[in-house]
Amino acid sequence: MEEKGISQAVISRLPRYYRYLGELKDEGVERISSQELSELMNVTASQIRQDFNNFGGFGQQGYGYNVNYLYTEIGKILGLDKSHHLVIIGAGNLGQALANYVNFERRGFIVKGVFDINPDLFGKDLRGIKVQPLDNVVEFVKQNNIDIAVLTIPKNGAVDITQQLVKYGVKAILNFAHVDLEVPEGVIVENVHLSDSLMKLSYNINHYKKK
Amino acid sequence: MEEKGISQAVISRLPRYYRYLGELKDEGVERISSQELSELMNVTASQIRQDFNNFGGFGQQGYGYNVNYLYTEIGKILGLDKSHHLVIIGAGNLGQALANYVNFERRGFIVKGVFDINPDLFGKDLRGIKVQPLDNVVEFVKQNNIDIAVLTIPKNGAVDITQQLVKYGVKAILNFAHVDLEVPEGVIVENVHLSDSLMKLSYNINHYKKK
Repeated sequence: MEEKGISQAVISRLPRYYRYLGELKDEGVERISSQELSELMNVTASQIRQDFNNFGGFGQQGYGYNVNYLYTEIGKILGLDKSHHLVIIGAGNLGQALANYVNFERRGFIVKGVFDINPDLFGKDLRGIKVQPLDNVVEFVKQNNIDIAVLTIPKNGAVDITQQLVKYGVKAILNFAHVDLEVPEGVIVENVHLSDSLMKLSYNINHYKKK
Repeated sequence: MEEKGISQAVISRLPRYYRYLGELKDEGVERISSQELSELMNVTASQIRQDFNNFGGFGQQGYGYNVNYLYTEIGKILGLDKSHHLVIIGAGNLGQALANYVNFERRGFIVKGVFDINPDLFGKDLRGIKVQPLDNVVEFVKQNNIDIAVLTIPKNGAVDITQQLVKYGVKAILNFAHVDLEVPEGVIVENVHLSDSLMKLSYNINHYKKK
């Protein structure tokens, strides 16, 4: 299937479709209309049809979408039929939380290595993976076909290590460091700025209060 | 200052301005033009001026913005001049990571309580706060003027506890559970769906590879 010039807004919505369809599938639902999916997900049916039309429409007939087919196809579009190898840089609480998060593995994101600069953490076992010194990461990335790096370290460290990682083949970064990373063309960064999320909450709390 | 009908897109950008201005302030920069800020932040100067015009423009003269003033004003708009009391529901790795994250406190987000259902965690000390049984949370929220709940528990628990929390005064939820929460009008939910971020990365990796 060819998808050209799909906007990031559409792509951002795909994981949510995938999540809802997975739940429907688990509940044994076989077909669903765009209207039913619309009510469940609290988006308009027209939005759903428009989004799906970017990928050929997934063959909705008068009687709705085949849930299993739709789930599988969106999974393929998201690249979840392939596995990705990732390293976690930073074995603090957040890094450990991510290393222990089994849902990542279910979706094909395989944690291959965890790294830190703190010697107290070296050798610590996270679901069978031992924390290694950060100095090992470049060699590790070279030898283990690593696609993704997850950065859960402070911002200065994040900027430095990013240059190294992309040089040795990392294609994508899930960045929890509170900094915008500069990367070469073709490398993808997805930011999770937790402070930014809290500040946005704070804004909205204050503005609801005023009303 | 009155701000009416500001779009969530603009609000989403405010924390990033705040972060850059804080760094400029720390570096001792006193004034900055929209052009300079534009280059630093990799957005257009016209976008910056439009965003700021929602709040009266912050008095840019020919010689630029006063960094300290702009930082303070955006902080006020974000409500960071007030403190917010929060509870963390779920004291697993992610909950512990958030409880230990000192930047939250610097921005006025004060962790008042941490709760879990796992008895092994009860009494565990996180920067002076002891993990309590989840059964205590409703009474705690009633008595401690809690604004914000951070949910780092599985999705079924998250749906149930949300109903209780909003009933007793929680105004905002930072939701890490992999589910969309239903809340009454006026209660704000900010989602951090880590799997969704990884899936979006996966999509983009696969589509760059094809090129």
